[in-house]
Amino acid sequence: MSLPFRGYECSPWELRWRGLAVDQLQRTESTFALSNGHIGVRGTLEEGEPRGLPGTYLNGFYEEHELPYAEAGYGYPEAGQTVVNVTDGKVIRMLVEDEPFDMRYGSATAHDRVLDFRTGTLTRTTEWESPTGRRVRVRTQRLVSFTQRAVVAIRYEVEPLEDDLQLVLQSDLLANEPIESDAGDPRVAAALQCPLESEFTYAQHYRAALVHRTKRSGLRMAAAMDHQIESPDGLRTEIAVENDLARLTVAVDVPRGKRVRLTKFLGYGWSAQRSIPALRAQVDAALAGALQTGWDGLLAEQKAFLDDFWDTADIQIDGDPELQQATRFALFHVLQAGARGESRAIPGKGLTGPGYDGHAFWDTESFVLPVLTYTMPEAARDALRWRHSTLDKARDRARQLGLRGAAFPWRSINGAECSAYWPAGTAAFHVSADIADAVARYLAATEDREFERTCGTEMLVETARLWMSLGHYDSHGRFRIDGVTGPDEYSAVADNNVYTNLMAARNLREAAASCERIPQVARALEATEHELGTWREAADRMLIPYDRELGVHPQSEGFTEHADWDFAGTPQRNYPLLLNYPYFDLYRKQVVKQADLVLALHLCGDAFTPEEKTRDFAYYEERTVRDSSLSAGTQAVVAAEVGHLELAYDYLGEAALTDLRDVHNNVRNGLHMASLAGAWNGVVAGFGGMRDHNGKLAFAPRLPPQLSRIEFRMCLRDSRFAVEVHAERATYRLLSGKPVEITHHGKACTVSEEPLSLPIPVLDPGPPPRQPTGREPSRRKPEHIRRPAGAARESTPG
Amino acid sequence: MSLPFRGYECSPWELRWRGLAVDQLQRTESTFALSNGHIGVRGTLEEGEPRGLPGTYLNGFYEEHELPYAEAGYGYPEAGQTVVNVTDGKVIRMLVEDEPFDMRYGSATAHDRVLDFRTGTLTRTTEWESPTGRRVRVRTQRLVSFTQRAVVAIRYEVEPLEDDLQLVLQSDLLANEPIESDAGDPRVAAALQCPLESEFTYAQHYRAALVHRTKRSGLRMAAAMDHQIESPDGLRTEIAVENDLARLTVAVDVPRGKRVRLTKFLGYGWSAQRSIPALRAQVDAALAGALQTGWDGLLAEQKAFLDDFWDTADIQIDGDPELQQATRFALFHVLQAGARGESRAIPGKGLTGPGYDGHAFWDTESFVLPVLTYTMPEAARDALRWRHSTLDKARDRARQLGLRGAAFPWRSINGAECSAYWPAGTAAFHVSADIADAVARYLAATEDREFERTCGTEMLVETARLWMSLGHYDSHGRFRIDGVTGPDEYSAVADNNVYTNLMAARNLREAAASCERIPQVARALEATEHELGTWREAADRMLIPYDRELGVHPQSEGFTEHADWDFAGTPQRNYPLLLNYPYFDLYRKQVVKQADLVLALHLCGDAFTPEEKTRDFAYYEERTVRDSSLSAGTQAVVAAEVGHLELAYDYLGEAALTDLRDVHNNVRNGLHMASLAGAWNGVVAGFGGMRDHNGKLAFAPRLPPQLSRIEFRMCLRDSRFAVEVHAERATYRLLSGKPVEITHHGKACTVSEEPLSLPIPVLDPGPPPRQPTGREPSRRKPEHIRRPAGAARESTPG
Repeated sequence: MSLPFRGYECSPWELRWRGLAVDQLQRTESTFALSNGHIGVRGTLEEGEPRGLPGTYLNGFYEEHELPYAEAGYGYPEAGQTVVNVTDGKVIRMLVEDEPFDMRYGSATAHDRVLDFRTGTLTRTTEWESPTGRRVRVRTQRLVSFTQRAVVAIRYEVEPLEDDLQLVLQSDLLANEPIESDAGDPRVAAALQCPLESEFTYAQHYRAALVHRTKRSGLRMAAAMDHQIESPDGLRTEIAVENDLARLTVAVDVPRGKRVRLTKFLGYGWSAQRSIPALRAQVDAALAGALQTGWDGLLAEQKAFLDDFWDTADIQIDGDPELQQATRFALFHVLQAGARGESRAIPGKGLTGPGYDGHAFWDTESFVLPVLTYTMPEAARDALRWRHSTLDKARDRARQLGLRGAAFPWRSINGAECSAYWPAGTAAFHVSADIADAVARYLAATEDREFERTCGTEMLVETARLWMSLGHYDSHGRFRIDGVTGPDEYSAVADNNVYTNLMAARNLREAAASCERIPQVARALEATEHELGTWREAADRMLIPYDRELGVHPQSEGFTEHADWDFAGTPQRNYPLLLNYPYFDLYRKQVVKQADLVLALHLCGDAFTPEEKTRDFAYYEERTVRDSSLSAGTQAVVAAEVGHLELAYDYLGEAALTDLRDVHNNVRNGLHMASLAGAWNGVVAGFGGMRDHNGKLAFAPRLPPQLSRIEFRMCLRDSRFAVEVHAERATYRLLSGKPVEITHHGKACTVSEEPLSLPIPVLDPGPPPRQPTGREPSRRKPEHIRRPAGAARESTPG
Repeated sequence: MSLPFRGYECSPWELRWRGLAVDQLQRTESTFALSNGHIGVRGTLEEGEPRGLPGTYLNGFYEEHELPYAEAGYGYPEAGQTVVNVTDGKVIRMLVEDEPFDMRYGSATAHDRVLDFRTGTLTRTTEWESPTGRRVRVRTQRLVSFTQRAVVAIRYEVEPLEDDLQLVLQSDLLANEPIESDAGDPRVAAALQCPLESEFTYAQHYRAALVHRTKRSGLRMAAAMDHQIESPDGLRTEIAVENDLARLTVAVDVPRGKRVRLTKFLGYGWSAQRSIPALRAQVDAALAGALQTGWDGLLAEQKAFLDDFWDTADIQIDGDPELQQATRFALFHVLQAGARGESRAIPGKGLTGPGYDGHAFWDTESFVLPVLTYTMPEAARDALRWRHSTLDKARDRARQLGLRGAAFPWRSINGAECSAYWPAGTAAFHVSADIADAVARYLAATEDREFERTCGTEMLVETARLWMSLGHYDSHGRFRIDGVTGPDEYSAVADNNVYTNLMAARNLREAAASCERIPQVARALEATEHELGTWREAADRMLIPYDRELGVHPQSEGFTEHADWDFAGTPQRNYPLLLNYPYFDLYRKQVVKQADLVLALHLCGDAFTPEEKTRDFAYYEERTVRDSSLSAGTQAVVAAEVGHLELAYDYLGEAALTDLRDVHNNVRNGLHMASLAGAWNGVVAGFGGMRDHNGKLAFAPRLPPQLSRIEFRMCLRDSRFAVEVHAERATYRLLSGKPVEITHHGKACTVSEEPLSLPIPVLDPGPPPRQPTGREPSRRKPEHIRRPAGAARESTPG
């Protein structure tokens, strides 16, 4: 390779990587992944190799496997689920005068790839000289359509640069692609070798289709491709199909100055129930639609869809171009994860990689859905509809655990619990309160009574019933919830986790309120006045432990009496701690993986006084190691609230750049959706001070000195509005719809078309809190802000 | 089969089962198992079939296997260990005029088997008629020698009853015997198919040997056999050997009134290091010794050994013949498990079956060693030497867990932790205090300074250091031990478990005392005066939680605030609860599997007032379901102490009869050594009121009304003495050695040759405590006492 490694370039509306670094391919395959929430295609090169970890995913399509236990226990899930790398349709190989186009051979004089946040496309431009000296320019562009959810389209153009050349293109559908496992790390998906069994193949003219079925889960999928070819005369094509491979071969002599252009349309579909002919028809129909719209039409639809999104959701940041880029990158990927899921889950990695086995966690409801609720509420609704569709499984799980109501799983693809380690899985019952919270937030933000009637009330009622059966009154009449695990994964199975208890109380109150709004559903669910009364009473009498001596809330009962972690004696190489210390040791000491009590300070901020927040935040800052990507965004939010704005700025930088900087060294397995969502939270809830307790929107904006201005946009019901923050003033203005009632630093006001400019009160936060040695967030220094992210990591060509 | 099923007969010095019930064979294979602590041979019929679960075990001989985890964590053990069914030498098959002798065919006119506690033999007498009407009487007797630890001997006699008969005997050494797995229950050993690889075979004249090696653990074993034959003339013999089979075939015509008598001597040995020739030589030498002693000599040695044991250890019970038998049965099996282990573990099932994978647990030190300490102290010493031999592994484990000192494993064969579920394994650190307690008890009872110098002090010091690194001082200067699991397996990972903290305090004090007794060892271990001071201070300041409102000790901090278990809503079929409820639910509620706080009341009784004991016992009685065989014996002891003598009597009955009645429905996998030891504890510590806090022997005898008299014997240092208890008086008398200082109901006195008869004070215990519905111990009713145990379970022939 003759190109220097450059890394990402800093640019407000795109992510560009110039040059090729083979050892970085897995990372860029994740960051350059395209998805519409239904189909996900990793950013692998069209020619298939060199590659990191190829992946094409269909949301909800998984294979089952046994969960092994050396010592099993009652109620342990027996079957695991793993996202399957489905039939790969993006493969287009090329021979240049009999030389395979492979960037590991010959030399590339130019190579760059661009993910464009406004067009929703990944574009690649490569100038390559073959080992025998033939030069070509290859330009590809691909999209996963937001508007036609079953469709992927790729345009592949080749141009000889000096000589007339014979070119052979091979456009494939490839099933059971061999992939390497990255075992040894539990966060990496268990590799599934050859998960698909061929059921049907078809090939004719430029079109082919493959239908497969998974061996154990019995899910059926179909992939079909069709092509349009523009080329000089003398084209020869051939189509062939085998069980796991369909291939259109195109051979043509291309004179210098001419080019060949292949446009490939892909249709994908899967079903647990539909027959082979039905699925085949479905993907053929998707292709028919795509062909009718055409490549330019698909591009135009994609752009229009994104224009609308950015009009509702854009964030502008003045004073930190890298953060500006990272924030839009984050919003773009959150959109990709959720846009067209349509009653499927939003996995922890979206559809960008096989990490976490493709499972969805509470991350979705607690981090991703707040973003979508205020930027693309129909996507939030669809994700909650997925949860609703799994309610029977959650009810069954609750029964199996001896509980009432619904116990949603810690991790799952199809709604059944897949967690094989219950102290950090099943015991984390807060997931059900998180789902209820997301339902309540969506309902308050949209007043979508149709969703409430068909899904929302039932979800709130069944989760409320879970809490009533999980908790009990002690001899002092306090409602206790014992032996559960809160958000912090370095603690487990403790009594009265503050976050859990506060969220459960909210769940109980919201369930009662929803039942009163939709009495006919309440009746159908047999939720009586008396039952509603028991929910409200339990919420009112919920035990919230408090350490009077220290003046702080223990994360769970007894936490503040536990031994301190020996941070001074913990070398940096021993992080993340879970890979170097036993759970036993982590659980019994005051060491926090991720915001837990601090997450309560954010999401249940109305339960704490400002002074409590300041003391609690300082206490947990000293004990939080941030070994989880879920943490920095929340720390940014609460740091901003208590006035530590520079600290908030550092945390926001970390959250927003988690994947671009590969902070956790695992971006190869996919992006961290919650962390990306954390960028939005850090800006909107952090520097914007947005809170939505009790369904009312409050703002308390404040900027760190490094930023001269931020502006963010939100939607609420049918209105859209913008909040622009400068150092001393914030301006609210309605973009469309009816005026919106909010508070600004505690004062009620109305956002209307006339910009409302209000002063920002000064807050003296006192001395900044400390973090464990070596676990401080990186300070965002001026050089980070001015220079592109990759520039600091110059390296030799891969 | 023409014999009625009879079950066990009641008899003071033997266990006899008349008749054959094929479906009961697995049970009797366990109860009729013979062992000397080095070799174990299950009570399978000589002809191999019908059978339950054949098994021949060598203490410490195991195969390794991977421990699978769906979600692994740092410090999880990777390799499991499973006891191996080694080369079976007890097989002697017979053809009676071409008909295989098989009790499933033809008919048996008599069949009984007797385990004799005084001769240490298993005898069988069978009269059988073949399907073609040939009748024989078969009499076999076998022993596993207490005096020649590598030797098993079997005498096999056959006598034609009506006709002259041709008999063919086949005496085998059989390796890799196929055995059935009983998977699905985690308590059952993972079956290992064909674990042995042949390394050497040999056969000549009447002798043969097989040497094998395990595939993964790389342990080598040898088994050899030799024979003596007494028969009418015309004998034809043949010996043959294959990799997994050596066989002596004996064919002879036996006239009516004559008999053939085969005496089979077996030698066993194993080693992790010795070569094939060395091991072969070892088993040949064992055979040479056995042949030189001869069958009658082995029988005589066995009898003499047992005479001495009973002279030291016998328990007499007047008024309950079944309990009398069960208690001697229990003592006999405890002796078999420990007599000649010689620096190997005493597994939870002894060498009677593959249950618990053949692992040793804390059961050994906390239940079995107290019995051996006061009845066969050299066996207690040898078991503790095994623990000492694993000290390096325990040190390594502590390091791996981030701790100092030594962390002994929850379950193991070779000393390495094999527990795959850390909340109920590794976190149960009390095992190290239990070992320290057993060391301290042994030292106090024997004053064995040689053991203390070579092993004891080091074990006490390293376990004391474990506690110092596990605990910490809170802001009030109390020493806390957080996040550990106590004895009760229905709770886990809790703070300040009272049992653990009290035992840790004792451990710390005993370590300091031992260092002062053996200063040269203390110096070698770098245990300074200052360090001893820190141990004593931590012991003095140990936090013992107490619930002032309820006036009881919580098992661990917060326990008494947890929800009650819904016993009324728990059907009896749902016991044991762990098979029907998730750990999650069990851990967070007030439901107790086995004595935990109540075990503290027994072993750390000096830390409680009598009133506290009464209240605590009543409180935990209401919450203890006794799903563990470790519990009834301890409940018997404490029930007796607080004056509930009839309840103590019921619990003693349950403990003593756990295996004979198959209370836990798993005796097929081996006997419960701790429960058998619990019979001794129930009598000696229960009705004898024996305590040994601080190394001083105290007695507080009291009989339940059902028993007219008990007498038990003990040894202390070089003395033996007997305690005879009647309703109103107890009599102490020295049997040999120097006078012994004791207390009787709190009053100091001296046991000398002159019997000392003292009155028993009356105690009004108040109303009896309640147990969870349906979990009361069975009342021992008069019909139980008078009739044989099996009589109540009459059934049709198997």
